[in-house]
Amino acid sequence: MGVRRVGQATYAVDSVEIISTAAVGGPKEGDGPLGQYFDRVWKDDSNGQKTFELAEVALLKESQEMARDKANIRWTDISAVLGGDLLDQIVSTNFAARNHGRPTLGLFSACAVFTEAVGLGAILVSAGGPTVVLASAVSHNLAAERQFRYPIELGYQRTPTASWTATAAGSAILGRGPGSLGITVESVTFGKVLDLGMKDPTDMGSAMAPAAFDTITQHLDDTDQKAADYDAIYTGDLGVFGLKLLEELARRERVPLGTVEDCGRVLYDLDRQDVHNGGSGAGCSASVFSGYLTHHLSSGKLRRILLVSTGALFSPTSYQQGQTIPCIAHAVSIRRKEQPV
Amino acid sequence: MGVRRVGQATYAVDSVEIISTAAVGGPKEGDGPLGQYFDRVWKDDSNGQKTFELAEVALLKESQEMARDKANIRWTDISAVLGGDLLDQIVSTNFAARNHGRPTLGLFSACAVFTEAVGLGAILVSAGGPTVVLASAVSHNLAAERQFRYPIELGYQRTPTASWTATAAGSAILGRGPGSLGITVESVTFGKVLDLGMKDPTDMGSAMAPAAFDTITQHLDDTDQKAADYDAIYTGDLGVFGLKLLEELARRERVPLGTVEDCGRVLYDLDRQDVHNGGSGAGCSASVFSGYLTHHLSSGKLRRILLVSTGALFSPTSYQQGQTIPCIAHAVSIRRKEQPV
Repeated sequence: MGVRRVGQATYAVDSVEIISTAAVGGPKEGDGPLGQYFDRVWKDDSNGQKTFELAEVALLKESQEMARDKANIRWTDISAVLGGDLLDQIVSTNFAARNHGRPTLGLFSACAVFTEAVGLGAILVSAGGPTVVLASAVSHNLAAERQFRYPIELGYQRTPTASWTATAAGSAILGRGPGSLGITVESVTFGKVLDLGMKDPTDMGSAMAPAAFDTITQHLDDTDQKAADYDAIYTGDLGVFGLKLLEELARRERVPLGTVEDCGRVLYDLDRQDVHNGGSGAGCSASVFSGYLTHHLSSGKLRRILLVSTGALFSPTSYQQGQTIPCIAHAVSIRRKEQPV
Repeated sequence: MGVRRVGQATYAVDSVEIISTAAVGGPKEGDGPLGQYFDRVWKDDSNGQKTFELAEVALLKESQEMARDKANIRWTDISAVLGGDLLDQIVSTNFAARNHGRPTLGLFSACAVFTEAVGLGAILVSAGGPTVVLASAVSHNLAAERQFRYPIELGYQRTPTASWTATAAGSAILGRGPGSLGITVESVTFGKVLDLGMKDPTDMGSAMAPAAFDTITQHLDDTDQKAADYDAIYTGDLGVFGLKLLEELARRERVPLGTVEDCGRVLYDLDRQDVHNGGSGAGCSASVFSGYLTHHLSSGKLRRILLVSTGALFSPTSYQQGQTIPCIAHAVSIRRKEQPV
């Protein structure tokens, strides 16, 4: 046990297992290419809740409860809950925490919050503090639309670079194991806030790409690795345009990225589902990891990945006041236990 | 070094010193009884910034820079920055992070965020991870007013139970020491989210009092202590009404609270400064601790305190949708090094 600082921004953790994960999604997410990897898919966007905001709370709670059930533990076995969402004052995370009675650490780094939660959670467990933690993140397309953009009834035209906020939640339970998934967290790299002067909130993928590139190269430098040491690097929600820019940055800086894919790009069928740039939202990388990626890590199709959730740290107020969009990315390195390092 | 779990929600940390702190306040805060303990007091609410939101960013940056200067370290010596604020998507914390280039962990627990940051920071340092962390929180009265309540120009009537959001920032640098202040973090208790059905956002002190009581009793139970083992318990921003309710709860449950005071009640002159219930805001307990309390802990007037920042976890949207106000409190135990435990 223990935590070891490796380079400027990376911490190696020891014997932290991902005991269980659960992903819950909306109908559009269930209809996408990863639909089968969701533990539950809602038939409609509300699932009987009175508001989209309460639906977001319910989505998160379902993913938390399912992860807890799969781990076969009670709420009282969980030492701390870490997580966040996109809504003002992260109300989804806090409202979901009203009933479980566990110590709660609210986090915010926009759509990067899932890896912030998993990373911090892994460090806390590895430090000998909490024995079991729950890390989660959620977003709801319609709650996000009316908070960040326009009421959906307005039917405004979306730009080609605009992302589609995922209606999805992902939860992961971390502990000292052993867990039946056979997946461990190896290390964590916390990102810095980067602002290259982008101002277009309908092109967040391009705004976030430099932050993703910075955290990936920081992680590789800190751990003295090459991208090829990973089966794949999965960014959070850069989408089509952001991923192109990330690859362009990597070419220019002569950093081979190996196999790089984006959670927002794989979540939907881009030809058929009219999501333009791809998926985004705090629940995007959370659910893609908790469903699809966990499945393939556990089955052995993937042996080692770097998950790099990315966040655009603006608010409607900051945008309306003409401010730029600062961005961040946090990375966690995850591998199958059987895989020799 | 290391982190030891003590009871359900408390973690003992080892050799984590508060190397330096800095508090910056607005004119009203400077004019209050604790004015002399602020490192800098602004002459007006804007200090040359174009918006109140940018003023909040500047306030935070000043407190961070001053804490860094006092610790006589460079930004590159700081391994991670932890903190939060009240603005949507914690833009103050994220915008302040655009220039320092350090790994940033955004947190949100409303006005409880300062102890969340200090507590998490102390655990990270004690775990052998980051060597030096900066924990900070900020609020600005006029930015908060127009986000949570009404434009100040409206001149609306405030209720007697309404709190006054402090225009203040506090920053603390934690490390393995030794620091010249001679103050250490002993342990951390993370609170759970409690919701007793309160719905009145103009009486947040009463809403938060049960959360403060829960975290205080959890801390005392976990560490097998009595309140009298502390020179004082300082709650975050319960104010006059919240503190009364906390004392009433303690009487009913027969838990002696010893000397208990509230950061929001001591920050202003309640007779003269027209703040009604007292001060509140993420910067309230952050600045009272970073100025006044640090001064008295360092000088020896106080030897040991429990700082219990309290947060009301609602948003304008959740309130307008008729939802209740969930609350939380996080506690850190802080003592002078010379003091035998």
